[in-house]
Amino acid sequence: MTVPTDRPAATPGETATAPRRLAAIDLGSNSFHLLVANYQDDRLQVVARLGEKVQLAAGLDEDGVLGEDAMRRALDCLARFAPFLKGIGHRDLRVVGTNALRDARNSQVLIERAEALLGHRIEIIAGREEARLIYLGAAHAVAEDGRRLIVDIGGGSTEFIIGEHFEPLALESLRMGCVTFTRRFFDSGEISEKRMRRAELAALSELANIQRPFQRLGWQDPVGSSGTIKAAAAVIAAAGQGPGGVITREGLRELRRQLIRCKRLDRVSMPGLKADRSRIFPAGIAILGAIFEAFDLQQMRFADGALREGVLYDMVGRHTPEDSRLKTLDGLARNYRVDGRQADNVAATALGLFDQVREAWGLDDDQARFLDWGSRLHEVGLAISHSQFHRHGAYLLEHSDLAGFSRPEQRLLAFLVRAHRRKFPVKEWQALPASEQGPHARLARLLRLAVLINHSRPEQPPPLPRLVADGEALQLTLNGDDDPALLLNDLEQEAAYQAAAGYSLTLSRP
Amino acid sequence: MTVPTDRPAATPGETATAPRRLAAIDLGSNSFHLLVANYQDDRLQVVARLGEKVQLAAGLDEDGVLGEDAMRRALDCLARFAPFLKGIGHRDLRVVGTNALRDARNSQVLIERAEALLGHRIEIIAGREEARLIYLGAAHAVAEDGRRLIVDIGGGSTEFIIGEHFEPLALESLRMGCVTFTRRFFDSGEISEKRMRRAELAALSELANIQRPFQRLGWQDPVGSSGTIKAAAAVIAAAGQGPGGVITREGLRELRRQLIRCKRLDRVSMPGLKADRSRIFPAGIAILGAIFEAFDLQQMRFADGALREGVLYDMVGRHTPEDSRLKTLDGLARNYRVDGRQADNVAATALGLFDQVREAWGLDDDQARFLDWGSRLHEVGLAISHSQFHRHGAYLLEHSDLAGFSRPEQRLLAFLVRAHRRKFPVKEWQALPASEQGPHARLARLLRLAVLINHSRPEQPPPLPRLVADGEALQLTLNGDDDPALLLNDLEQEAAYQAAAGYSLTLSRP
Repeated sequence: MTVPTDRPAATPGETATAPRRLAAIDLGSNSFHLLVANYQDDRLQVVARLGEKVQLAAGLDEDGVLGEDAMRRALDCLARFAPFLKGIGHRDLRVVGTNALRDARNSQVLIERAEALLGHRIEIIAGREEARLIYLGAAHAVAEDGRRLIVDIGGGSTEFIIGEHFEPLALESLRMGCVTFTRRFFDSGEISEKRMRRAELAALSELANIQRPFQRLGWQDPVGSSGTIKAAAAVIAAAGQGPGGVITREGLRELRRQLIRCKRLDRVSMPGLKADRSRIFPAGIAILGAIFEAFDLQQMRFADGALREGVLYDMVGRHTPEDSRLKTLDGLARNYRVDGRQADNVAATALGLFDQVREAWGLDDDQARFLDWGSRLHEVGLAISHSQFHRHGAYLLEHSDLAGFSRPEQRLLAFLVRAHRRKFPVKEWQALPASEQGPHARLARLLRLAVLINHSRPEQPPPLPRLVADGEALQLTLNGDDDPALLLNDLEQEAAYQAAAGYSLTLSRP
Repeated sequence: MTVPTDRPAATPGETATAPRRLAAIDLGSNSFHLLVANYQDDRLQVVARLGEKVQLAAGLDEDGVLGEDAMRRALDCLARFAPFLKGIGHRDLRVVGTNALRDARNSQVLIERAEALLGHRIEIIAGREEARLIYLGAAHAVAEDGRRLIVDIGGGSTEFIIGEHFEPLALESLRMGCVTFTRRFFDSGEISEKRMRRAELAALSELANIQRPFQRLGWQDPVGSSGTIKAAAAVIAAAGQGPGGVITREGLRELRRQLIRCKRLDRVSMPGLKADRSRIFPAGIAILGAIFEAFDLQQMRFADGALREGVLYDMVGRHTPEDSRLKTLDGLARNYRVDGRQADNVAATALGLFDQVREAWGLDDDQARFLDWGSRLHEVGLAISHSQFHRHGAYLLEHSDLAGFSRPEQRLLAFLVRAHRRKFPVKEWQALPASEQGPHARLARLLRLAVLINHSRPEQPPPLPRLVADGEALQLTLNGDDDPALLLNDLEQEAAYQAAAGYSLTLSRP
C-alpha cells in the first residue's frame, strides 16, 4: 500500500520567511503543560513554557469518575493557557490527554467543556502513542548517539522506551504513576518500610511484563523525564550525593530511607523538593526504586519535558512523506495482507466521489485523507474471517496501537471500516461524539458507494458515476454501462440501507 | 510453536482387529443426515446412511427465532437417528449444525433438548469450517488429480472450495441457500422471469466477493454436492439433455425456462424431481444459475454427500500428528508472532498444575489438550496491543476461522485467553452454556496460576509449586525460593481476584 501525499497541508496566511508558531498542551494526570515554539529552518525555538499541578488523577473517585473540583481546576488552568494560543492555527496546535483522561469514565464531559473553552479539539492518546511522542521529544533533546532507555513517570502511567537516533525499538506504557500509587499505597498518609515495599512490589509486578524483552535489547544510557525524576535528582544533588541532574543508586537508597523517616506524607520536606510535589513524592520514589531494581540501574540522567516537545516535532512531521501515520498504515496493510489493488481501486473511486460533493458538503483535505486511508484499510478484517469482516476490521483499528494516530482519528478509521458494508451501523454511529456524527456519516456513505462500485474487484476502478449532494440527499447517475444489472441491484439494496438510516440516495441512468 | 501429541486418544474397549465404528450427523438448514461407517485399515466403509428433510431454515421467523414446529420436526428426526448410535463412543461421534443453527437466535434451546436426547454434544460450525469439511469429504470421494472447484448449495448457505489433493486452497461460505432464498424471493408462491432474475442478481452480488480470487486460482473440474445439484442433474438427465450426474449449461437454461412456465411453486413438477424438493427448487436453480454465470461454467458434475463424509475423515485424523487443529494453532501463533519460549513455559507449568488436581477434579485428556493450547495462545492478543491484550486475544480466537475447531472449542480457547489475567471475567463466564461453566472455570484458574508463576518470563519454567484441590478450593504451597516476594505479591492479588469471583485460593510456604 502506498498512501498518496499529493494533498500537502496549506498553512494559510504564512509567508515564506515568517516562522511557523506551534503549540502543544499536555493534559497529564498530575500536571498540565503548555509549550509554544517557533519553527524555522528545521528548528524549534521555545517562546513560552507553562505548567500547573492540576492533579487530575487525584480527582478520580473509586468508580473512576472525575469530580467537579478537579474539572474546575483543569478548566481554570486552561483559561490561563488560552491567551498564549491566540493566532495559532488549527494545524499548529495539538492538545493531548493522557492516563487520567483515558481512565476517567466521564472524561467526555471535561473534554467538551475544555474544547468549548479552547475552541480546539482535544485528543486522548493511548499509552504507547504517549511513549512514542515522549521518545520523539527526548531523541531531539539528547545529543549523544547510542541506544537509550527513556523512562517517564507520570501521575497515572509510566512510559518506557528503548531507541536509537529517532527510531523507537520498544515502547511500553504501564499503569502505575505517582498520583495513583499515592492513593493505592499511602492513602492513610503514613509512610513506612512496609508501605514503601508494597508499592515497590506492585511496581515490580507491572515491570515483570517488560523486564526481559527490554534487557534483551539493552541500552547504554538511561534517561528519565517528568517531575518525579527531576525532583529526585534535585534532592540528591542538594544532599551532595551526586552531580546535578543525575540520580545515583546510592543517592536513591538514602532518599528512600529519609522518606521513611518522615513517617507521614504531610511531613515530607527536604532541601531541593518543592512543597507541591511532597505528597506524591514517596509513591514516585517507590516506582523509581522498582525501576532501578528491575533494570539493575546504577544511575539515571534527568532530561526535560519530553512529551510536549515530542508533540511539536510530530506536528512538524505531519502531512509530509515522513508523516508517521503513513508508516503505521503501511505496516497494518502488510501485516494483515490487505489486497492492495482492490484497496487502491476503492480509494480512487472514493476520492473521485469525494471531489464531486466536496463543495456542497464543505469537506476539507483532512477528510479526504481519512477517506483515502479508510478505503485502503476497509478489508483489513478479512485476515480474521470473511464473515462480518467489517466488524473485525473496526475492532483492529479501534484497539491497535497505531503510531501517530490520536484516539478520535482511530475512532474515525474504525467507524469507516465498520460502516462500509451491510446495514448502516446506526447504533455505532449514535455512540460517536455529537460533533463527529454528521461529518463521519458523510465519509462513510461515500466509502460505501465506492466499495459497491468496485464490488466485482475489477483490474481498474470502473468509470466514475456522477454524484450530486443536495443537503444530505445524494443522487447518483450511472454511466451507460453494458451490463449494470449487478451494480443496479447492489445500489437498490444500498438505497434501502441508507433509507433505513434516514438518508436519501436516489439512482438514475443517463 | 509445537503442540505435543503425547497424550494419544484411547478408544476404550477396542481390540487390535475390531473395526472402529464412527458416526456423523449433519444438522443442515434443509435436511438432517446421519452417516455411520466402520473404519479399518485406513478406509471407511459406510454401514448406514439416513436423511430427512427437516426444513429447519423454513421454521425461522422474521426475527430469526426457530418455531416450536420446526424444533419438533428436528427432535423427531433425531429420535429416529438415535438407535443407530448405540455403542458408538463419544470420540467417534460428531454432530454438527450449520447455517440455520448459526442464524437462529434461540438455537441454544434446540441444542440443549437435542443434546439431552442424543446424550452427546452438538457443535455449531462456522461457514468456512463447513467448507473445509465438505472439501475433505469431496477430496476423498473424487479420485482424479488436478485442481477442483467444489460447490455445495445448502438450505441457508453455499460453500465454495478450490483445492488440490487433500489441500484446500480457498474456502468460502456465502449467505445464500435454497430455503432462505425461497423465503426472500418466492414468498408469494409465484415464479416469474422477474423473480428468478432478482434471486439470481442477489446471488451474483454475493458471488462478486469471491469471483475474481477464485478465477485467479482456476480449476479443471467443477463438482457440486447437495440436494439442489443432485436434483438438477436428475431432471436434466430425465429430459435427455445430458448424461446422468452432469449439469450442462444448456440443460440448466432449459430447466430454468421450464420452472418459469410452472408459474407457481405448488405447481412445480417434472420427471426426476422428488415432490419434497419442488418448493425450494426454483430458488436453488437461481443460485446454481448465478454460479454458472459468475464462474462462466460449461458444466458441473454431481458428487455425493461431502459434509458428513468430511466429518468422518476429520474424526479419523484427530488426536494424531495430522490433527488439523495443530496446524491451525501453529499458523495462528506464527501469524501473530507469539513468544514461543514463554508459551512453552506457561504450558509446561499449566500441565504440571493440571496433573496435580487431575484426579480430584476428574479432568480428562481433552481438557489437558485445551489447557495446553490455551497456554500456547494466551499472549496472541499482544499483536494488537499490550493494553487489554487478554481481551484482544479472546476476540481473535472467537472470530477467526480456525480450521478443525468447532464453535464450542473456539469458545473454550477464547474464554481461557480472556480469563488469564486481571479480574476473573465473571460476566463472560456467566454467558457460557451452563454445562461449560464449571469445567472451563477450573481450567482458567490453572492457567492464571501458570501465567503468574512465569510472570518474570524466565528462561525455564520455575520449579512447580504444590497444588491441592478440595472441592473448588485450591491450596498452593510455594517452594523455598530465594526471593519469592514478587510471586507472593502477585499471588495475594490473585487470591483476592479469585475470592471476588467466589473461589478460594489459599497460599502457604513450606
